[in-house]
Amino acid sequence: MDAHAQLVPPVPHVSSGPALELEALVFDVFGTLVDWRSSLIEDLTAFGAERGIVADWPAFVDAWRGAYAPSMDRVRHGEQPWTSLDALHRASFTRLATQYGFENALDEAGRRWCVDRWHRLRPWPDTVAGLRRLRTRYLLGTLSNGNVRLLADLAKSARLPMDVILSAELFRHYKPDPEVYRGAIDLLGAEPRRVMLVAAHNSDLQAAAQQGMRTAFVARPFEYGPDQQKDQVADPGIEFNVRDLGELADRLGA
Amino acid sequence: MDAHAQLVPPVPHVSSGPALELEALVFDVFGTLVDWRSSLIEDLTAFGAERGIVADWPAFVDAWRGAYAPSMDRVRHGEQPWTSLDALHRASFTRLATQYGFENALDEAGRRWCVDRWHRLRPWPDTVAGLRRLRTRYLLGTLSNGNVRLLADLAKSARLPMDVILSAELFRHYKPDPEVYRGAIDLLGAEPRRVMLVAAHNSDLQAAAQQGMRTAFVARPFEYGPDQQKDQVADPGIEFNVRDLGELADRLGA
Repeated sequence: MDAHAQLVPPVPHVSSGPALELEALVFDVFGTLVDWRSSLIEDLTAFGAERGIVADWPAFVDAWRGAYAPSMDRVRHGEQPWTSLDALHRASFTRLATQYGFENALDEAGRRWCVDRWHRLRPWPDTVAGLRRLRTRYLLGTLSNGNVRLLADLAKSARLPMDVILSAELFRHYKPDPEVYRGAIDLLGAEPRRVMLVAAHNSDLQAAAQQGMRTAFVARPFEYGPDQQKDQVADPGIEFNVRDLGELADRLGA
Repeated sequence: MDAHAQLVPPVPHVSSGPALELEALVFDVFGTLVDWRSSLIEDLTAFGAERGIVADWPAFVDAWRGAYAPSMDRVRHGEQPWTSLDALHRASFTRLATQYGFENALDEAGRRWCVDRWHRLRPWPDTVAGLRRLRTRYLLGTLSNGNVRLLADLAKSARLPMDVILSAELFRHYKPDPEVYRGAIDLLGAEPRRVMLVAAHNSDLQAAAQQGMRTAFVARPFEYGPDQQKDQVADPGIEFNVRDLGELADRLGA
């Protein structure tokens, strides 16, 4: 009977051994799990072709992503009240579309479609298989600056195996503010050392380590295109340094 | 290629027709998706047998669940600061174990194991198949008074197909406080009429309807055991009245 098969034997199962020390893995999403750059270039190129809009779409996408940190920093530094990433993406899209000279060619539905592409990004080739393995042993969550709806749509469309969607939006603070990591630890009801952040960005991992979380760097050397310089290797002190999520699953016994 | 298969054609997809009007379904969990009573009676009976504790376990479980509403009401009415459901369950378990005369027979690991049973409840027979169908068409979330970690563990162990875990804990208000429904609508980034609450409890559905959400009553006539009187049928005004989640999937075209 199913119910019996699922009944854990009534034996105390408080984690004690080193094998059980880690309970949950939380993942940065943009760049770490999904390839935002190739996905957006592909989608916006298709959009431009259909709408007859000529633009340097790779440059546009890089500029759009380039607006990400400064726009969040305005929120982080209190110059702007809490604003979701969807709203920040929309504002920067509109500004850039004006700058690139095609804002007048857009209608509301087209503008929404473009901003909504962040909800439909595609995973890196190792992402889904790696998460599937890790999920057999650990609780998996996102921990991203994307808002909850964006992340839920993205996890669904990219088929990312996840147990919980944790987002900066829940804490009204953007990474790397400490409130985000502390908030995630609190919602997971776990000691910090039982939670690991997996990310392709050293600054994110450093901020997590400062809150006592464990850390894994996954290399995404072409996240920003062929000329990327940053985040090629893990900073000293990062606990795991892996080339993909398959290697992380190997290392964590999943 | 996978990436191309997932590329939605660049056509405006703003929902307009009635078929697309509903975007997300959120579910009450205890009683609606999982059979807390049978699960807890089974687990605590096994625990008692192993530990040599004799008790009327069905009566104990009913008393434990009976402490649920009053303990949340103390939080809702400001007599107690925000306290997670795990902590409320633990406090009422300890009080009842004393009343039933077996608190002295418990160690910390045993007490934790018992309180943790709420993270391992089993689904009703129609739950998983019904959710799987509904998830092909709609975004699915929990909307429960359980805390985030409890719900994430439960969804994982019961294999509930979910896209997002929404919990009273995120809003620091327990249902039926309006903040919970409004908070869920806000995180889903949707108009209230595009979100439906599915629940086996009329009071929950009435509170959701007051916030403009759509409503579906699913009958769980034996949730509280063979003598249950309450919530046998949907109150007038509830939009859908179904006998299980399979019927809801039929009615919603999933």
